[in-house]
Amino acid sequence: MTRILLLGAGRSASSLIQYLLRHAAAESWHLTVADVQPAHLVPVLAAHTEYARAIPFDVHDEAQLEELVPQADIVVSMLPALFHAPVARACVRHRRHLVTASYVSEEIRALHAEAEAAGVTVLMECGLDPGLDHMSAMRILADIRRRGGRLTSFKSYCGGLLAPESEGENPWQYKFTWNPRNVVLAGQSTAKFLEAGRLRFIPYQQLFARTELLTVPGFGEFEGYANRDSLSYRAPYGLEAIPTMLRGTLRRPGYCAAWHALVRLGLTDDTVHLANPATLTWRELLEAYLPATTTAADVASRVAAYLQLDPQGPEMQRLAWLELFSDRLVGLPDATPAQLLEKLLTEKWALQPHDKDMIVMQHQFEYELNGRQYAQTSSLVVLGDDAVHTAMAKTVGLPVGMAVRRLAQGRLTRRGVVIPTLPEVYEPILTELELDYGIRFVEEEHVLPMAEAAAIRK
Amino acid sequence: MTRILLLGAGRSASSLIQYLLRHAAAESWHLTVADVQPAHLVPVLAAHTEYARAIPFDVHDEAQLEELVPQADIVVSMLPALFHAPVARACVRHRRHLVTASYVSEEIRALHAEAEAAGVTVLMECGLDPGLDHMSAMRILADIRRRGGRLTSFKSYCGGLLAPESEGENPWQYKFTWNPRNVVLAGQSTAKFLEAGRLRFIPYQQLFARTELLTVPGFGEFEGYANRDSLSYRAPYGLEAIPTMLRGTLRRPGYCAAWHALVRLGLTDDTVHLANPATLTWRELLEAYLPATTTAADVASRVAAYLQLDPQGPEMQRLAWLELFSDRLVGLPDATPAQLLEKLLTEKWALQPHDKDMIVMQHQFEYELNGRQYAQTSSLVVLGDDAVHTAMAKTVGLPVGMAVRRLAQGRLTRRGVVIPTLPEVYEPILTELELDYGIRFVEEEHVLPMAEAAAIRK
Repeated sequence: MTRILLLGAGRSASSLIQYLLRHAAAESWHLTVADVQPAHLVPVLAAHTEYARAIPFDVHDEAQLEELVPQADIVVSMLPALFHAPVARACVRHRRHLVTASYVSEEIRALHAEAEAAGVTVLMECGLDPGLDHMSAMRILADIRRRGGRLTSFKSYCGGLLAPESEGENPWQYKFTWNPRNVVLAGQSTAKFLEAGRLRFIPYQQLFARTELLTVPGFGEFEGYANRDSLSYRAPYGLEAIPTMLRGTLRRPGYCAAWHALVRLGLTDDTVHLANPATLTWRELLEAYLPATTTAADVASRVAAYLQLDPQGPEMQRLAWLELFSDRLVGLPDATPAQLLEKLLTEKWALQPHDKDMIVMQHQFEYELNGRQYAQTSSLVVLGDDAVHTAMAKTVGLPVGMAVRRLAQGRLTRRGVVIPTLPEVYEPILTELELDYGIRFVEEEHVLPMAEAAAIRK
Repeated sequence: MTRILLLGAGRSASSLIQYLLRHAAAESWHLTVADVQPAHLVPVLAAHTEYARAIPFDVHDEAQLEELVPQADIVVSMLPALFHAPVARACVRHRRHLVTASYVSEEIRALHAEAEAAGVTVLMECGLDPGLDHMSAMRILADIRRRGGRLTSFKSYCGGLLAPESEGENPWQYKFTWNPRNVVLAGQSTAKFLEAGRLRFIPYQQLFARTELLTVPGFGEFEGYANRDSLSYRAPYGLEAIPTMLRGTLRRPGYCAAWHALVRLGLTDDTVHLANPATLTWRELLEAYLPATTTAADVASRVAAYLQLDPQGPEMQRLAWLELFSDRLVGLPDATPAQLLEKLLTEKWALQPHDKDMIVMQHQFEYELNGRQYAQTSSLVVLGDDAVHTAMAKTVGLPVGMAVRRLAQGRLTRRGVVIPTLPEVYEPILTELELDYGIRFVEEEHVLPMAEAAAIRK
């Protein structure tokens, strides 16, 4: 019997729990789901009480963590990322494997040698992004290398969006399927990437104005903005000398230009509390940002004039849809602009029970082979079933579950702190996702004409 | 005998030490100057060894602090602000008075009741800004109130600049007389102030584009940008209901527009390390920020086109003077943009031995009295003697020294955490600054015509 301890059973864990329950009997697993509010798990586990139980768990209770970890063979953490370091330390101390869907932090990285010596696998970045992005990119990179190709460009985009049928009247074509705060604060730094062998930087105040358009077969156009750091995956991907490398986030066209207007207004700043009353209206808040010199009849026109936007244009339409120019109350006293915006968006961009979400991922490779320049695109679209079994929950949870299964079977043998760039991790997971869940990438490849190839390298 | 302990004897302490030595014999003081590098104090104290000594002091050595504080009657801290909390706690514990030139932090504020109960005065914000600004403003506010006036507007500006004779060929008309890092990171938040009874906000990306011009008699024009928080002094100044309140920082005209260009380029961001080599040139760094679509012969023209600035205009002239478009090396590997900019500016804006600095402060009051609207301006200009005895050192250090003297004489009786908004603190200090040092404010007053008064209240 393999004892599996799942820490945290929030929204993104639904598909993971389903997966673990589906395989528990055949694989002889016993599953303990530890969550701050275990009551909602009772109906989920009702038909599986022989090998699954839910227990209350307080993430701040280190004694409880010390008690639970040694009782498991494999620990899975779906807790917020900041709680992973103490969990990982407990796992290494008690020689238990750990799987998460979060980025390797400095604290986790520091555990590598100790984990390796203890015979423990700390498998991080095993969800969607990071996770499936590494796996699918590495498979294609390995294939190109096998054929003797030399990579010249790698761009990779991912976005958690809405299924086309659920975009409805919302001009942003976006709702929250992930942490709202992270969406509001996205990109508040300088984005760095590589283009034609040179470092490239985009400061925050330009980030949403400098997007790239891309097309996903069958799903139309998207725009991508650069992630904070596209450089750090050169080494793990074995692309130390690649001239062009960019990782980005996808939105529907028009989102970024409108978000850029919010940034320019100052509404995404999270560093200052505004001393505002909760009864301030959004119209009054916008007024407070306008220079006294801006004069026009209504606040919407003044904002348009200030930002030099067409008053009837797509950006202003999106801002108006958020009721920024209305008497709607901001609702929070002495808050940061970002907190006020997050509160508003959480109401306007709430996923409704009938809504379906959509995960879109696209890798764009360019490589030289036998004197020719090739472009290859690999695209994935996953649709959610409903507001509970979202595409986000599936694409984050299933790779985690599959990695746990490989670990339990003793077929994942690398120890230490690991991310799924190893064929022994990604090959079986990608295959299982395709065969059992229809989660598959669509490939397109073509030879670049010489002029285009030259232009890319200019 | 009164034993005075001065912690920290950096650049801004020169005038303070001179002041303390000048009065030590007559006032029967014994002065201990504790500094990380006490060697430079030997010649300064040479003629005063009967009542003054220098000792080595490590700010991180809490045991030494515990030993030194009880041996003093009054402690003066000119250490960087972040070290004041442990010093203040030691002072309260050992019932010793403390004087500093730094802002009251939350940690210091929390000591108020305990300090009061222990009979200890923790006198904070007793330098220039904060310090002299409070004192001079409070004196005029008290006078207007005494005459029955009702304040409608209070704007207060201060800047550490260059004496006109030292501005030379430098188009920024600015050099560092204060912490360079603070200058580079200035304003990275949302500025909040009051205008005609309404909250007003300016986000960082607009801050240096929304300045006000003002004139100081005999010294020409300056421009002021809003400080981060103009609201928090309403209560200490007794101006809870004032319709307009703004605190700002002064520069020479043209500085802010050029700095705004640096902000827009992204060169003031301190949140990301660029993975750059130290051998990167400034021209290459600028190139890395330009969108690939910007095409022109040289990088300066491309930057001008990108920022929509006149290639020959005053902003581009200032950027070129900094050698941003040259093959000068950035000189630091894997640095933040702000770190690179600070390094460059520290070289370009270094105060030379013959340079004289200049402190400029201006308060602008508007008030109603007997149905009329008055405007009153109070301006101060202090010139430095040289690059050691700067106007900054004088205006920061002398008020601190004078406050120490009052405390030692038992004539400053308020206990607890105090700032110099009390007449018993500011009146004698302002008088001594005027009589002994010629540091005096110039007042101008006029009746506002009705139209102007109405416009102000619109």
